[in-house]
Amino acid sequence: MLDLTSDVADLTAALVDIRSESGDEKVLADRVERALADLPHLEVLRDGDAVVARTGLGRPRRVVIAGHLDTVPVVDNLPSHVDGGRLYGCGTSDMKAGVAVQLKLAALAAEPVHDVTYVFYDNEEVDASRNGLRRLAAHSPEWLAGDFAILMEPTGGVIEGGCQGTMRVRVTVRGTRAHSARSWMGENAIHGAGAVLDVLRAHTPREPEVEGLRFHEGLNAVFVEGGVAGNVIPDECVVTVNYRFAPDLSVAEAEAYLRGLFDGYEVEVTDAAAPARPGLDDPSAAAFVASVGGGRARAKLGWTDVSRFSELGVPAVNYGPGDPTLAHTRDEYADIAKIREAEERMLGWLTGER
Amino acid sequence: MLDLTSDVADLTAALVDIRSESGDEKVLADRVERALADLPHLEVLRDGDAVVARTGLGRPRRVVIAGHLDTVPVVDNLPSHVDGGRLYGCGTSDMKAGVAVQLKLAALAAEPVHDVTYVFYDNEEVDASRNGLRRLAAHSPEWLAGDFAILMEPTGGVIEGGCQGTMRVRVTVRGTRAHSARSWMGENAIHGAGAVLDVLRAHTPREPEVEGLRFHEGLNAVFVEGGVAGNVIPDECVVTVNYRFAPDLSVAEAEAYLRGLFDGYEVEVTDAAAPARPGLDDPSAAAFVASVGGGRARAKLGWTDVSRFSELGVPAVNYGPGDPTLAHTRDEYADIAKIREAEERMLGWLTGER
Repeated sequence: MLDLTSDVADLTAALVDIRSESGDEKVLADRVERALADLPHLEVLRDGDAVVARTGLGRPRRVVIAGHLDTVPVVDNLPSHVDGGRLYGCGTSDMKAGVAVQLKLAALAAEPVHDVTYVFYDNEEVDASRNGLRRLAAHSPEWLAGDFAILMEPTGGVIEGGCQGTMRVRVTVRGTRAHSARSWMGENAIHGAGAVLDVLRAHTPREPEVEGLRFHEGLNAVFVEGGVAGNVIPDECVVTVNYRFAPDLSVAEAEAYLRGLFDGYEVEVTDAAAPARPGLDDPSAAAFVASVGGGRARAKLGWTDVSRFSELGVPAVNYGPGDPTLAHTRDEYADIAKIREAEERMLGWLTGER
Repeated sequence: MLDLTSDVADLTAALVDIRSESGDEKVLADRVERALADLPHLEVLRDGDAVVARTGLGRPRRVVIAGHLDTVPVVDNLPSHVDGGRLYGCGTSDMKAGVAVQLKLAALAAEPVHDVTYVFYDNEEVDASRNGLRRLAAHSPEWLAGDFAILMEPTGGVIEGGCQGTMRVRVTVRGTRAHSARSWMGENAIHGAGAVLDVLRAHTPREPEVEGLRFHEGLNAVFVEGGVAGNVIPDECVVTVNYRFAPDLSVAEAEAYLRGLFDGYEVEVTDAAAPARPGLDDPSAAAFVASVGGGRARAKLGWTDVSRFSELGVPAVNYGPGDPTLAHTRDEYADIAKIREAEERMLGWLTGER
């Protein structure tokens, strides 16, 4: 049994010691579901190994606080142990410290100022097709409804708003083959790709402010390939371009932008993930930043699961006590003081005491 | 037995019908050696499946007339057959028609105006390390000595002088890896390679006249590769450049030229083959062009075995009755009129009657 009255660091250790690699979250999900079911102010829902618990107080606003139950594979770093104010073990930072804070909030904030939905989901650390939050969004989007969402992935205790989108396109340059001893009979596609690289080299990334945060785009070749044989003028060269775009653009707008930039070339979108609005102009989000973040927040530049909330119309931020640079490392740990700080700040915000 | 008194087209057919794929030339080499041994004006030498026969008349100049005995693999195109003035079959154009002309000259020109060395060699159609002419040059360079050489590879009856050299270099551009969501933390090596492509795009190939012939160089990217992962700023991009250079440059000079052009980048030479001087300012070569070529010759732009003569200090040309565009095709044939024309012209030149 998980004891939700225990100290948040002890609760984190208990969660870490229930091994839950992606695809193997059932034991932990069962324990979380049972612990939450004992709390009379929460309605508990379940989908596979995802657990959702929510208040129904009729508050004017609802916030969603989400975290994933799974970890990357254990590498001889279980059970957990404490050393020098740090809790070591697989999943401490990414992200059972955050899950422990969620569970403490669920237990302690019986009458929060906003209605709250706590989401615990599976399979975040693996292929997106298995992602539990994605599955919930498809099966039961109403479970994820809210005015504002907080994803408790490790951010070192800093609020990171929204996330940038990402798109990859293959830009294909055509030419005409010829023997390289008579190169003027052909048209060199690799030389032609120089013009595509010119576009990238001349490009100045946008740094727009979106809903209160400064984003920073990037437009880069991530692959280039061309060539037939050592004595052949190549007739094809493909430059794969990755565009990281701020959340003032939709996926469709990002695509249109790239097609304009590479007008005259074959442009094929190979993958895309939507950005997420930070929503810091939303009153509950602004209050969250003022209270929990001490008024400070920065833009999230990498893509994260907050995008799934944004796609449902829920602005979202990343905020968690873990250290993102330790995620997925063998020596992963969470700073116990940081876990307590996150619990205290979040609880103060939810109860209106901060 | 090969009958060297037979018509040159019949002799070509007889040679074609003795299958001699690369590495399997022994039967044909034995027949050639035996036929030549019957000619009292020739000294016959042998190295593996290469046969060399030469006059020793004390003439002031010596010419070398060379051809290879091997063919590419037979593809259901043997035995030979005649249809509409064409002799069909594997190796007709490349290059048993040329070998037949060599053998007719050896038999008929008992008192040529120049001393003549006839070279018949093995393994031209395979990896250079097995090449019979290369082996002869290493074992017995004196067998290949002369003032001028004619390689009877198919040229459609046109004299092609010398050959261009070829060099491949890998030009490596370095950068610094970073996550593509924070691309400004890195340095994109693919974008950096744009500057290498700029050099290639801005380059104007030389078209120098060398020893009477106009060459035409080429400098081209033949491969480009770079990229680590779809979300990583790449730290390395390699452009493989092929330089086809005229015979007024040595291999060392070509390398120095490329190193100057790509100054500041890592430049690694991956392979190089020397060019061949056409030597058309040599009196015997000029006489050959005047007599056999009707005064016309053009530069050979692709690399050929004439380079091996040039490396021994013997200027060389390509001249043969076969059609180069038919070489290595299933429907390979040689035009019988062209074979007779080559025999007649070469014989006229060697006997001083043309």
